[in-house]
Amino acid sequence: MTLRRDQIIEIIAVGSELLTPYYQDTNSLFISEKLNDLGLRVSFKSVVGDDWGDLLKCIRAARARADLIFTIGGLGPTQDDNTREALATALKKELIFKENLWESIKNRFKKRGIPLASINRKQAHILEGAVVLDNKNGTAPGLWVESGSKTFILLPGPPAELKPMLEKAVLPKLKTIQKKYCFRGILKITGLTESMTESQVSDLYPAQDDHDLNLTILAYPGQIELHMCGYSDKSKHQARNKVKHLEKSIRERLQDKIFSDGKELEEVIGDLLIQNQATLAVAESCTGGLLGHRITNVPGSSQYFLQGVQVYSYDAKIKLLGIPKQILDSHGAVSAETSSRMALQIRKISQADYGLAVTGIAGPGGGTAKKPVGLVYTSLASKLGVITKKNIFLGNREIIKYRSSQKALDMLRRHLQNPTAYSFKRK
Amino acid sequence: MTLRRDQIIEIIAVGSELLTPYYQDTNSLFISEKLNDLGLRVSFKSVVGDDWGDLLKCIRAARARADLIFTIGGLGPTQDDNTREALATALKKELIFKENLWESIKNRFKKRGIPLASINRKQAHILEGAVVLDNKNGTAPGLWVESGSKTFILLPGPPAELKPMLEKAVLPKLKTIQKKYCFRGILKITGLTESMTESQVSDLYPAQDDHDLNLTILAYPGQIELHMCGYSDKSKHQARNKVKHLEKSIRERLQDKIFSDGKELEEVIGDLLIQNQATLAVAESCTGGLLGHRITNVPGSSQYFLQGVQVYSYDAKIKLLGIPKQILDSHGAVSAETSSRMALQIRKISQADYGLAVTGIAGPGGGTAKKPVGLVYTSLASKLGVITKKNIFLGNREIIKYRSSQKALDMLRRHLQNPTAYSFKRK
Repeated sequence: MTLRRDQIIEIIAVGSELLTPYYQDTNSLFISEKLNDLGLRVSFKSVVGDDWGDLLKCIRAARARADLIFTIGGLGPTQDDNTREALATALKKELIFKENLWESIKNRFKKRGIPLASINRKQAHILEGAVVLDNKNGTAPGLWVESGSKTFILLPGPPAELKPMLEKAVLPKLKTIQKKYCFRGILKITGLTESMTESQVSDLYPAQDDHDLNLTILAYPGQIELHMCGYSDKSKHQARNKVKHLEKSIRERLQDKIFSDGKELEEVIGDLLIQNQATLAVAESCTGGLLGHRITNVPGSSQYFLQGVQVYSYDAKIKLLGIPKQILDSHGAVSAETSSRMALQIRKISQADYGLAVTGIAGPGGGTAKKPVGLVYTSLASKLGVITKKNIFLGNREIIKYRSSQKALDMLRRHLQNPTAYSFKRK
Repeated sequence: MTLRRDQIIEIIAVGSELLTPYYQDTNSLFISEKLNDLGLRVSFKSVVGDDWGDLLKCIRAARARADLIFTIGGLGPTQDDNTREALATALKKELIFKENLWESIKNRFKKRGIPLASINRKQAHILEGAVVLDNKNGTAPGLWVESGSKTFILLPGPPAELKPMLEKAVLPKLKTIQKKYCFRGILKITGLTESMTESQVSDLYPAQDDHDLNLTILAYPGQIELHMCGYSDKSKHQARNKVKHLEKSIRERLQDKIFSDGKELEEVIGDLLIQNQATLAVAESCTGGLLGHRITNVPGSSQYFLQGVQVYSYDAKIKLLGIPKQILDSHGAVSAETSSRMALQIRKISQADYGLAVTGIAGPGGGTAKKPVGLVYTSLASKLGVITKKNIFLGNREIIKYRSSQKALDMLRRHLQNPTAYSFKRK
């Protein structure tokens, strides 16, 4: 085994489709994550097509600058699959036919009742001295090849084959060069922008030169995620302590802006409703169904989600929810009054414990000077009455819809976690 | 200008965040697409972090194997931004301070009322002989650098800066090496799997060695897309003809399985409803709001979408829609009878021209031997009566929900495009 710590690592993704505008190499993210967990970092990533000469150049460049090189793809049976052959050429090694490998490939075809093509014989060839990495989910075996101080790990392209092979056959071997123990933590936040979050916690960030603790901020519309990664030379426990220490300081700052340590907001709501043995109904205008869609993305949501109405038209607000026409006429469909009534009415009609309502202008049309695109009212009704929030959301139509659903869900989350968070207005 | 046709092209994305498990280099897809449009293909893509030495190695490897090299990122004002400096070292060129560039950076800060930091002076340096590419959306100017037979194009990392710079400052220059004229076409398909699509049209595929016409199949749950790209040495018209010829043959085979040449299914529905001056309402059980969400993602959908109900519970089906309890008791909530009634009732209640309904088992729980996870009924009601389809969808909860919404929308699409597509059952 030529593996040493402090290896320079490169990942080469092979396949002409990866050079088109349609495909991304997502396998490398998975490999990076798993290597990070061992305290190993990737220094280079390359993408190259099926062309023999280009692939050879890519392998040679990687060998010149890296020690541990992963290749992804190009192990199939067709003429375009050249990774094995190009590496053999680059390393001046022979390709050797392995009878037992051929037998297992033949068996695989037999079991699945598929006629075997002679081109599959190619997959029974390995570089001399290579170790075969078993592929339980396909015909292309992986290979572990050592050459001087360099190690090449050849993995198949389909994620369903690559992922188990990496986890079962590769990572256990790499544990011998594990640099550090790793512990990961996540905090999910809503109700703050990325810059608001940063201004509140940036002094808590690990130092740039602290290689044992890092924090990544990922910003999505309506949601900020803090990904923390702690490392330790000694134990997983110590790595965990580093993360937990940082997490504690961040929680003290951001408090109830943090809604979970991993779960999505709709899952958090689901857990809280089940704990409280409470039920929910929704009345949606501008979200058009998104709120109910998100709630029902959670398996088992039928335990607490009773029903909803998508009252898109003026008429539907009157007929389905019984909003008085004079409220709509005097305040408008997008107003605090209408939003409050929607939440109260859907709660009443459904006999749910909680009613959530959203009404707003998602755009791009329909905005006025007084009621611009992005103006959205969100309401929560309970036995205590109703609370309504006025929001101005930025973004395109889909983002405004998403932010609206996020805000409505978060109002319910805050109330369930802290019954004194809001003062309800008696109806 | 050292640009020639048949250049080998490489794209280098610079940034340590691109080596973490969280980020993908999506800029390179945009560049690839624009280069493809000129008949130019990308041969290599690389990703490297901010490390000075690694960046230098990456630039050197690219210079050795490629002629036209795009770099993305690393042009900012901080210490981590090294692309300009590393390229100057690799090419043995001086970095020269440009007074006029410094003035324009200063002006930009002044206009936006942001205090200027001295570190921004770095961005006013260019490689000797380089041409500045104006950045209207940020402070980092791009650079066009020629060295011997090699051309380097340095672009900023933020997509909002990269995209306009590529389109306005880079592509017009690259037109001089445009190899071919290009025309793109898309066909979107539903109701067929990827392999069913392939078995019907694979004999129409352009030959592997036909460099002037190619076809890419992209498969998503419930949707297949055929992306066609035609090239011609002579004219855009000729490139278009190649695509149109292929498109015609594919349309003859797949007929009404093709729902658009680019638009999403919900947009196609919207166009058809507007053409027919017709209105729509939905009744959703297992989709929980997704159907209405998709319909209302289309700007202007309030013209035809009236309302919906998310009748998740047994009770809601009875109370909101007036489904007779004995129907639910004898056939079950997931049944052709319930689905038909849902569509008929929502149409009646809303007075819409069309009613769509979905009821099914999205899983993972709730399945039985007789009614497995994935069993979904979809119904369309019109003045002619109702039609109901029984579907068995594969996939996880979210995929089953999506496929259900797709099927319901597609039933309406088929009926609107061809009134004789279905025979409605009189109620």
